Amino acid sequence: MPYLDLIASPTLVINETITRANIQRMAEKANRHGKKLIPHWKTAQSHEIGNWAKEYGITEVTASSIKLAEYLCGQGWENIHIAFPFNVREISRLNRLAENQGISVQIVNTSTIQALADQLTQTVGFFIEIDAGYGRTGVATSDFQTIDAILSISKTSSALQFKGFYLHPGHTYYGVDKQKIHEESREALHILKTTYQSSYPNLVTRLGDTPGCAVMEEFGDVDELGPGNFVFFDLMQVQLGSCRKEDIAVCLAVPVVDINLERKEILVHGGGVHLAKDVLVNADGSKNFGEVVLLDEKGWSIPSHYSYMKSISQEHGIVKASDELLAAVKVGDLLGILPVHSCMTADCMGEYLSLDEKKIDHAEGCH
Amino acid sequence: MPYLDLIASPTLVINETITRANIQRMAEKANRHGKKLIPHWKTAQSHEIGNWAKEYGITEVTASSIKLAEYLCGQGWENIHIAFPFNVREISRLNRLAENQGISVQIVNTSTIQALADQLTQTVGFFIEIDAGYGRTGVATSDFQTIDAILSISKTSSALQFKGFYLHPGHTYYGVDKQKIHEESREALHILKTTYQSSYPNLVTRLGDTPGCAVMEEFGDVDELGPGNFVFFDLMQVQLGSCRKEDIAVCLAVPVVDINLERKEILVHGGGVHLAKDVLVNADGSKNFGEVVLLDEKGWSIPSHYSYMKSISQEHGIVKASDELLAAVKVGDLLGILPVHSCMTADCMGEYLSLDEKKIDHAEGCH
Repeated sequence: MPYLDLIASPTLVINETITRANIQRMAEKANRHGKKLIPHWKTAQSHEIGNWAKEYGITEVTASSIKLAEYLCGQGWENIHIAFPFNVREISRLNRLAENQGISVQIVNTSTIQALADQLTQTVGFFIEIDAGYGRTGVATSDFQTIDAILSISKTSSALQFKGFYLHPGHTYYGVDKQKIHEESREALHILKTTYQSSYPNLVTRLGDTPGCAVMEEFGDVDELGPGNFVFFDLMQVQLGSCRKEDIAVCLAVPVVDINLERKEILVHGGGVHLAKDVLVNADGSKNFGEVVLLDEKGWSIPSHYSYMKSISQEHGIVKASDELLAAVKVGDLLGILPVHSCMTADCMGEYLSLDEKKIDHAEGCH
Repeated sequence: MPYLDLIASPTLVINETITRANIQRMAEKANRHGKKLIPHWKTAQSHEIGNWAKEYGITEVTASSIKLAEYLCGQGWENIHIAFPFNVREISRLNRLAENQGISVQIVNTSTIQALADQLTQTVGFFIEIDAGYGRTGVATSDFQTIDAILSISKTSSALQFKGFYLHPGHTYYGVDKQKIHEESREALHILKTTYQSSYPNLVTRLGDTPGCAVMEEFGDVDELGPGNFVFFDLMQVQLGSCRKEDIAVCLAVPVVDINLERKEILVHGGGVHLAKDVLVNADGSKNFGEVVLLDEKGWSIPSHYSYMKSISQEHGIVKASDELLAAVKVGDLLGILPVHSCMTADCMGEYLSLDEKKIDHAEGCH
């Protein structure tokens, strides 16, 4: 039965070919630059998609939470890095997790490393997260005092192994000068590496943001690349220039439940609980919660006429429709919606349907 | 063990006393006005909370999707109404659901009622949804032609039973004149009732929005009230004047992972995948993704000093903290966050923890 006939309700469709091409392209780029690609798996959150990634030489992944790390555990990953400032209330979960799985965590202050030094029963690696100007989280680049204090405390526990420095320059998402941010980030990691390499000859530096990793071609002495969103991409990444619309690997199939010819609107079953509520702004100032593509038995195509989701509530989505779409659509049809933020959409949906009718796992669907 | 000691990771805490008080207050108000309260269960999405509601005379609920209706099925509800324009791709699911459960659906056009007339094998009720100016979905108040056509088609199937008119004046959420919207909505339902009552003597009218049902005291000849959010309330409802902050019945407990004294910010594990990304705007123009409350063993208290979640990403939340909070907080503590939109937060979390340490079910947590 064609995959479209399996869809009665909002369903996240994945195009395996596009997904594999995205992974392959980034893996080849990392190879070309002599870097190790360790993708952030908060986007895909899937064993099956992990198996695809392994075919392109991926051996380690990153998780956004201990919950996701627990899900990914035991799937043959050499190491799972939890790229979130470690939460000391989860130390006993971490000890259990690290019994049978290579794990590393992220440190941004001394009190957390002290708690780990006191309570870890298993060997765990750690990265120190560096803030080079994003302002969300991390030790400031020049705060050698905190870095030294963290390293000093870590030496009191044989369970703690310093791996290196991690930097997520998330401000590349805000439309400022990406090139400059990328250079500053690289430079920050370079200084840290040269400062600490004599004491820690095996330390590595990791830089992880999709806009930077997708577009830049100069990575200096950075050792590892850690982008996440590139596996699927989305409309936000298109706007940032990281990819083309044709590279977006997932779309939400939504049933048409009503059509308003006068207002040129199509009501679909697909709302905030499916897409999440991330939003872009169109050139005319209107909001865009997702863009319409035309589903067919081979996947989807991007129409020359533009239609988009203009508003969203818990379950409802209202599509502002082109004349061409209005002329073609009827109640009971399916439309495809390219997501604004694919990580959030996948997290909401908790499962994928492939074009060859396979259900593909996602951590959130497996309670 | 006190409930706080059970919390290691982001957890949605529910205060049963406040929840019951919210349900009781609305049930008493409906009784006082001689109306039937049929709450929209898209907010709570829970069997256990449904059992609480039954103690206040609630016998029917509303679902936002067939998926939620399936979850709520078989729990003793006399009827479950699916208050979303019916999706014709789900007719076979509807037939299965209606085998053992009183079900009604919502109709906004003729093609959908035709498909139901053709394919229903079980008895199903239907409401015609009316749009009295919100502009999201529904038949326009004055569009008697469409209403007549829907009713005419429905008569061709003995499986279809017309129940009445449903109106959700969601524009009360947008800060315009609530009183006027409420009066227009009531008037629209009154006209429809008087027009169709001679042909359908048992028809009922239902009005469902929390701001209107919470604040207004005049419901005219409306038969049923269908608010949803009032079960928990949230910061948006506080802003709309529907409730006090003290009436909010759920809060997200989030672990503190870092503190930045210089920026007066607290980094917590609690992001868009937990709270959703609904947002309010503070008086100074800054964004507010949730407000900090102080957790204690009896629940939480609202501090006199204001701290709020100023930004949010997939897993991260950054709290802009008052001096008092900064002076008291340490890494590893838990903070409570009152949600901006409790329906979305509950949907993200898929489970509640009560103050007496019970896990309480939510449809999204039970795959």
